[in-house]
Amino acid sequence: MSSFDQVVNLISDDLSAVESILTENTASEYSFVDMAVQHVVEGGGKRLRPILVLLSARTCGYVGSDAHTLAAVVELIHVASLVHDDVLDEAAIRRGRETLQTKWGNKVAVLVGDYLHARVLSMLVSRKSDDPAMEILADTTQAMCEGEVIHAYKSGDFDISEEEYLKIISFKTGKLIAASCILGAHLGTNNMERIDAITQYGQQIGTAFQIVDDLLDFVEAPEKLGKNAYGDLREGKLTFPIIYTRKVCDDGEKQMLEKVLNADSDESQAINYVESLFEKYDVETHCLRIAQGYADRANAALTILPQSAARKALENLANYVVSRES
Amino acid sequence: MSSFDQVVNLISDDLSAVESILTENTASEYSFVDMAVQHVVEGGGKRLRPILVLLSARTCGYVGSDAHTLAAVVELIHVASLVHDDVLDEAAIRRGRETLQTKWGNKVAVLVGDYLHARVLSMLVSRKSDDPAMEILADTTQAMCEGEVIHAYKSGDFDISEEEYLKIISFKTGKLIAASCILGAHLGTNNMERIDAITQYGQQIGTAFQIVDDLLDFVEAPEKLGKNAYGDLREGKLTFPIIYTRKVCDDGEKQMLEKVLNADSDESQAINYVESLFEKYDVETHCLRIAQGYADRANAALTILPQSAARKALENLANYVVSRES
Repeated sequence: MSSFDQVVNLISDDLSAVESILTENTASEYSFVDMAVQHVVEGGGKRLRPILVLLSARTCGYVGSDAHTLAAVVELIHVASLVHDDVLDEAAIRRGRETLQTKWGNKVAVLVGDYLHARVLSMLVSRKSDDPAMEILADTTQAMCEGEVIHAYKSGDFDISEEEYLKIISFKTGKLIAASCILGAHLGTNNMERIDAITQYGQQIGTAFQIVDDLLDFVEAPEKLGKNAYGDLREGKLTFPIIYTRKVCDDGEKQMLEKVLNADSDESQAINYVESLFEKYDVETHCLRIAQGYADRANAALTILPQSAARKALENLANYVVSRES
Repeated sequence: MSSFDQVVNLISDDLSAVESILTENTASEYSFVDMAVQHVVEGGGKRLRPILVLLSARTCGYVGSDAHTLAAVVELIHVASLVHDDVLDEAAIRRGRETLQTKWGNKVAVLVGDYLHARVLSMLVSRKSDDPAMEILADTTQAMCEGEVIHAYKSGDFDISEEEYLKIISFKTGKLIAASCILGAHLGTNNMERIDAITQYGQQIGTAFQIVDDLLDFVEAPEKLGKNAYGDLREGKLTFPIIYTRKVCDDGEKQMLEKVLNADSDESQAINYVESLFEKYDVETHCLRIAQGYADRANAALTILPQSAARKALENLANYVVSRES
């Protein structure tokens, strides 16, 4: 059994409960809305964020159904962001399935994303006023948008630094992953040291996750990736592997890289040139090393928490985030 | 002074407070996000929904700052929906200003809409758990999306009935207008009869508003409209005036109408033919009569409420919704 399967196995009953909540809470009496929403919600994916809510809750001593609700909420926020990303990236395939806009057009896709946010609001309505979930999620969704807007605005900026980029991804991806951990932790404990440890863990694996995601777009076979390869490159998005390459290559290569990444240049030429630089500077190994550093720091943060099967699963998950192939 | 100006005059201090909240609560520490958000939030518009919150609150006896917050919230939900609508309608001009996607591209526009929703969530965080606002707004945003998705899906359906269309607009436009009234009423009273009266009022003027909006797209000069005329026609959207015309014209005209509204046919030909049918069947007068009927029913619902300047202003507002020129 893979390390990821072992993690899933530990909490399989909880994950089934989350799936039920996802299905129930996204149903619409309008069959067309229902169909479009189920298409994306049942689209699979690893349910990484629900898993993090559940394991963080358990690590902090909580077992109960509120973790299922919050796990479903973070997954819906995630799916909504994917749906909107896909619209604007003009992605045709996601998780091996047609995207909504391929199937039904842009308009439906944007609105389904909005619909999922509305459902999230409904699921949060009945929470107590001293419950921290609303505030955490409000901050998180705001930061996700800010990260996305800045990334979109910066997308043509060849001079973006590694530091700026890491800040953007800590917003775009890191915040919701960290929030998943924090929400789970709050269910089980008020101990701020423990909550901080889980927060640290979440922030670190969020960054590891995105760096590996960026890398997989270049090095992974499309059938494993569940989407088209070189998608970021084609869209002119500068991601971690390119930003790193730009930093380490010589001036002539840097100029050439900028030239081939220009929107007007030939796509296959760009891919070939990028691949040659990746090989020369061993970019894959470097990216994985950086990502593993984040995973190691994530796990180091957990050491103040009591040993448990759930904590062990969080540790395995951090390593899986780096070693995964899709 | 126009009847609308008189209404605004009555609550001008409250409206200034709402504007301050809008500005404060949409500020982002990221200057680019801030600029894009302020572009749409300060884009003007009539602030109809905030006005309805404020007047409904007053009519039910409430004066205080919570009405300002809720007025700002409904306006942000409205602006967010406009931003997303504009993206997908590929609108270039709104309220006389360039739309976000004209200025900064689609991606930024979709994300700014999402950002505004995130801000709404933040503004609702601190509300008490027995406060009805969250639930009302969760239901409202869901219904708005359902209405939009169904309208998008039905947009190519020449056979959509007046009844189906009225249902769609009661979701797309009516729900938020009604919610504005309901939120205001709840601040001032727990009396269900009064809340129902205000709810009735809101639902009726919501429909009146959308019918007139649909009509203005055909008959109003673009400089007053603040956007390009015949926008709905160009996008292939069937709206109330066309659906009514289709119902009253003869079979030959119906076939011809369907033909010219087909995406492949010449745009100016479509506009000329539609104008000729509008004249023949006096469509403008008919639409205004229908809209006035809704406004009259809106005002009839108010009669159970005590006489006051605020109630009188709501009545004037209902008539203004029909008589407005933009």
